Amino acid sequence: MKNVRMTVAYDGTHYHGFQTQPSGKTIQDQLEAGIHMLTGEEIRIIGSGRTDAGVHARAQVFNFHTESRIPIDRWAIALNSRLPDDIVIQFAEEVQEDFHARFSAKRKTYRYAIDTNKFPNVFTRHYRFHHHAPLDVAAMREGLAALIGEHDFTSFASPQSTQSSHVRTIFDASLVQNQDGLDLFVTGNGFLYNMVRIIAGTAISIGEGKMSASDIPAILAACDRTKAGPTAMAHGLMLWHVEYPE
Amino acid sequence: MKNVRMTVAYDGTHYHGFQTQPSGKTIQDQLEAGIHMLTGEEIRIIGSGRTDAGVHARAQVFNFHTESRIPIDRWAIALNSRLPDDIVIQFAEEVQEDFHARFSAKRKTYRYAIDTNKFPNVFTRHYRFHHHAPLDVAAMREGLAALIGEHDFTSFASPQSTQSSHVRTIFDASLVQNQDGLDLFVTGNGFLYNMVRIIAGTAISIGEGKMSASDIPAILAACDRTKAGPTAMAHGLMLWHVEYPE
Repeated sequence: MKNVRMTVAYDGTHYHGFQTQPSGKTIQDQLEAGIHMLTGEEIRIIGSGRTDAGVHARAQVFNFHTESRIPIDRWAIALNSRLPDDIVIQFAEEVQEDFHARFSAKRKTYRYAIDTNKFPNVFTRHYRFHHHAPLDVAAMREGLAALIGEHDFTSFASPQSTQSSHVRTIFDASLVQNQDGLDLFVTGNGFLYNMVRIIAGTAISIGEGKMSASDIPAILAACDRTKAGPTAMAHGLMLWHVEYPE
Repeated sequence: MKNVRMTVAYDGTHYHGFQTQPSGKTIQDQLEAGIHMLTGEEIRIIGSGRTDAGVHARAQVFNFHTESRIPIDRWAIALNSRLPDDIVIQFAEEVQEDFHARFSAKRKTYRYAIDTNKFPNVFTRHYRFHHHAPLDVAAMREGLAALIGEHDFTSFASPQSTQSSHVRTIFDASLVQNQDGLDLFVTGNGFLYNMVRIIAGTAISIGEGKMSASDIPAILAACDRTKAGPTAMAHGLMLWHVEYPE
């Protein structure tokens, strides 16, 4: 029995999220169907975490156990030929038996991308949220800095979150300016349901002057979802990187 | 009567090219339908030139004459609200009565984009041709340089071309390396049917070692389409820029 770890990029536009849903088409379903076509095995893969409907991944990580004798360096090519063209395996490697894509993950980074052009860039329209009104980048940075550290993020979680603890650590939250606008990168030890989208929506509200960076400590302390900004649109979000111990 | 010039970006993936076709859905149809919704006028727009089915444009230019009293600085916003999200007007301006998007054009630049990653970048898959085998960039550059100048480009035109003359001038043909691979930029005073795609296909053949840069003069001299390389896939091509006299 081998434990195989893969890195996968996907365009989430046409999917109901990563994780298998009764309601339909997910990334996980496509990956498991592809593996079934290759090996005949009925396998459940383990993702590093969920991504919501419409959210993308540059480097999602998952693992699964297989009896297959496909050489590890052939797996990516073989599986890609069984996947739709909006899901692309980037890398496959064999890992120790106890590696678990979710429990072993140490840090995750998401990117929230904002297109600040007057009119949307048509070639990135599925991956960047279009917001052409001026944003106060310095204020956004100040607000994001106030989120860094260990906090109870109840105010930044969907009320539907079923996690027993809402305490998480954000290691970094930075805003990078580029040709098309702004890239918000958030790195943490884990994220609650909708957390990055609420952070992005709050940062945008600060950028618009509707909220103030100095409000952040009180928003965190309130442990009340209604105090933070809106949940930003899914299509601007991308799972960027998942880190594991060496 | 005003003469309005617009710059439009489009994702050509789902269209049968720029120019109205009996066979169906084109960019021109969408633009004319949008203008009709706004003004009630039955207008024929004049594009700077055609783009093939599946080819994109970053900055296609077109013009049309209208009796509409919509202020010129409202046109782009108004028309964008009547267009599908894969067609975005970037800019509108009023121009002199005799401006003609095709006849007035002096130089055009196309980009042919090659994704040289081992596996395709899922987020640019509709805009870059994936070619992961190694390419000899120096040889490609040498071959492209041999195309610069005024030549009869019959060997680089579809046999379906109905132009009376196949003499065109290429001012520049350069290859830029970027994060995802190679961008081939070709600037000329005009292009024949399939010409940039055949230039791209020939450059790729040179990069693969199937043809030699030193073959180019003989290919041009032959005036025979079968001597040049294959016609590269449409989706890698983008109309980048159209220049007019100041």
